[in-house]
Amino acid sequence: MNPKINFTPGPSQLYFTVEDHVRQAFKEGVPSLSHRSKKFEAISQEATEGLRELLGIMPTHHIYFTGSANEIWERIIQNLVETESFHFVNGAFSKRFYEIAQQLHKAPRKLETEPGNGFSGEVDIPSSTELIALTHNETSTGVTTNPEFIYTVKEKNQHALIAVDAVSSLPYPSFNYSRINTAFFSVQKGFGLPAGLGVWIADDACLAKAESLLSKGISIGSFHNLPTLHAHAVKNQTPETPNVLGIYLLGKVIGDMQRRGIDIIRKETEYKAAILYQALDAHPLLKSFVQDKNLQSKTVIVAECGVHTEKLTEFLIEKGLYPGDGYGSSRKNQLRFANFPTHSKEQYELLVDSLEKFAG
Amino acid sequence: MNPKINFTPGPSQLYFTVEDHVRQAFKEGVPSLSHRSKKFEAISQEATEGLRELLGIMPTHHIYFTGSANEIWERIIQNLVETESFHFVNGAFSKRFYEIAQQLHKAPRKLETEPGNGFSGEVDIPSSTELIALTHNETSTGVTTNPEFIYTVKEKNQHALIAVDAVSSLPYPSFNYSRINTAFFSVQKGFGLPAGLGVWIADDACLAKAESLLSKGISIGSFHNLPTLHAHAVKNQTPETPNVLGIYLLGKVIGDMQRRGIDIIRKETEYKAAILYQALDAHPLLKSFVQDKNLQSKTVIVAECGVHTEKLTEFLIEKGLYPGDGYGSSRKNQLRFANFPTHSKEQYELLVDSLEKFAG
Repeated sequence: MNPKINFTPGPSQLYFTVEDHVRQAFKEGVPSLSHRSKKFEAISQEATEGLRELLGIMPTHHIYFTGSANEIWERIIQNLVETESFHFVNGAFSKRFYEIAQQLHKAPRKLETEPGNGFSGEVDIPSSTELIALTHNETSTGVTTNPEFIYTVKEKNQHALIAVDAVSSLPYPSFNYSRINTAFFSVQKGFGLPAGLGVWIADDACLAKAESLLSKGISIGSFHNLPTLHAHAVKNQTPETPNVLGIYLLGKVIGDMQRRGIDIIRKETEYKAAILYQALDAHPLLKSFVQDKNLQSKTVIVAECGVHTEKLTEFLIEKGLYPGDGYGSSRKNQLRFANFPTHSKEQYELLVDSLEKFAG
Repeated sequence: MNPKINFTPGPSQLYFTVEDHVRQAFKEGVPSLSHRSKKFEAISQEATEGLRELLGIMPTHHIYFTGSANEIWERIIQNLVETESFHFVNGAFSKRFYEIAQQLHKAPRKLETEPGNGFSGEVDIPSSTELIALTHNETSTGVTTNPEFIYTVKEKNQHALIAVDAVSSLPYPSFNYSRINTAFFSVQKGFGLPAGLGVWIADDACLAKAESLLSKGISIGSFHNLPTLHAHAVKNQTPETPNVLGIYLLGKVIGDMQRRGIDIIRKETEYKAAILYQALDAHPLLKSFVQDKNLQSKTVIVAECGVHTEKLTEFLIEKGLYPGDGYGSSRKNQLRFANFPTHSKEQYELLVDSLEKFAG
C-alpha cells in the first residue's frame, strides 16, 4: 500500500515533524499549561520571534493569535475601518472578506474580476478608502497577486491601510512588510499544523487606527480588539486562554523551517510548482486553470480536468495521492493541489509521474 | 519522585485518556482532515450528540463551536442584546461579561456583590432587560450560583433570555436546560482537554432573537453569528476551519465520561469537594474563603491561606500537588483547587492528607 499524501489545500498534509513535537509537548505538560505562566510566555515568544526571523518581519509589525483566519477578517474590518474599505475580489475567499465588511455595517467597495483572473495595472481607488484588502493567493482559484502590484497600490494610496490575505501562501512569499500594514494566515495550510489558530501580523499604523476609532466612540470588539491583543502580546500573553498547544507547535515547526532554510523552502516551492504546471500543460487531457503565468499561484495549483475529474481523482487516490476538490461549482471539473513546505520534491515528482501516466 | 497532579482551575490536569486519543487521532489522520469531509461531520456529530446525552440537552437547544469562552461572551452580547443586558456580578469573570457588553456599546446593568458573596432571594430586574447573565461558578472566587436561583430568575423575567456561564463547572451541574436559554464552557476545565475550543449551547429562542436583531438591521457579527453557526451546525459543520483535533478529543472524552457514568462523576465531585472543605475548616492555619455552604463551589475550591500561602504552595509542590494561585489581588493569600472529573478520589485524598500535615 502507498503511504497517503494529502494535497488538499487546507487542512493539508501535516508538516512531517508535527507528530514528534506533539509527543514532546505531552512530555513537557504543554497541553495543560496555564496561559498565565512564564513557561507559556516563553512558548509564545518562541513562536512570534521565530516567525519574525523566518519571514523578515520588522519591529514596527506585531504578531497576534486568534482562533482562525476567518476571525482575522472580522477583526480587521472591526478595528481598521470606520466606514469604507476597498476589496480586490477574484474568488470565493476575497469575496468573503468583502461580505464580512458588509455584515459589520461598513460601506465596502470592490473591484471584481472573474474567477481565474487577477489584477494588474492602474486601479482607481476612492480617496475616502480607509483599508484596501488584497488576497495574495486566492485559494479557490489558484490565482496569485504579485507583491509588486500590492506595493504599487500602497504607494498610490498612502491614506489607506493595506491588508494582505496570505492564508494559503505563507511562508512562501517574501514580502517587504514595510509596504504592507497587515497580513495574516491560518496554521493548517503552509505551516502544516492542526487547524485552530490564526496568526495576525499588524503594524503600528493599524494599532493607531484602532485606537482612533475607539477614541471616536466606535466599538472595535472586546477581548480581541487590537489594543487589547497588543497590550497582552507585548508581555507574550493573550487576552483569553488560547490554543496553547497550537502556539507551541507553530514555534517548533518554524524552528524546523529555519534549520532547513527559508531560501531552500522557497526554491523548492518554485521547482515543485514549475514541474506540476509543466506536466499539466504537456498533458493531452488536462491543463492549468490559470493560463497567465504571472497569475499562477505557486502554492495552490488548480488543474482543469473537465470530464476526467472523477476518474483522475480515483487514479491518484489509488496511488496514495489525495488531490483537493475544485472549489464550489468547480468541484466537478477541477482539482486543486497544495504545494506547501511539507510536500517534498520527491512527492511532487511522484505526483507529476502519475499525472503523466493518466490516460483518461 | 511524585507524579505531578495539576489542581490549577484551567487549563487544568488533562483528562487521563487524552494522550491516548491524540495518538489515535494521528493514526486516523484527524489533524489534517478537511473540515468539509464526511469524516469531519461524523466527528462533530459524535461530540455534539455525546454532549447532548451526557448533559441531558433537549432538541430545542443547539450546540456550536467557537475559539474560546471569551468569544462566546462576545457572541452572546452581539447576537442576543439590542440594548439592555443585566449581569449578576460577583467576581472577575462575571464582571468581564458585563464589561464586554459595554465594549459592544450596549447598555448593561449589573447587580454587584463583594467577591466571595453570591446571590439569593428576590432581585428586581427592569422589564426592558433582554438578557440576564449569571455565572454558575465564579472561577476567581469559588462561589457557585444555585441552579434553583437561576430558574427563579427565569420564571420572574420571562421576557428575558437567561445566559449561564458554566465555564468552570460543566459537566458537574445537572441543569434543566428547558429553564435556561444559553450556557457555555471551554474545554480546558471540567473536560480536561487542551485549550482552544469553546462550546456554546443556545436554544431556539436565542436563534429567533438573533434573527430579529438581523431583520431590524442590527449587526450581529459575521462568520460566527448565530444564524450562520446554526446553518452549519445542522449539517454537523462549522463556518470556518475549526479546531478539528479539539472537537475530536471532546467527543472521545465525552464517550469516556459516558462509560464511567455522569452520576458517578457527579457523586465523586461532591465527595472530593466535601473532604477538601472539611480539611480546610478543620485546619488551624487555613479556612475556606467562601464560608456560606450554599455558595461553596464544588468544582473550584478556594482556600484562604493568609501568610502561609507561599509556604503551603512549596509544601504541596514538593509532593507533586500543584495548586492554582489565588486570582488577581488574592494571589498572595489564597490558593484555588480545581475539582474536575479527571481528579480522582485518591488524588483528592492525597491532597487532603497533605494539607492535614501542613503545620506552617
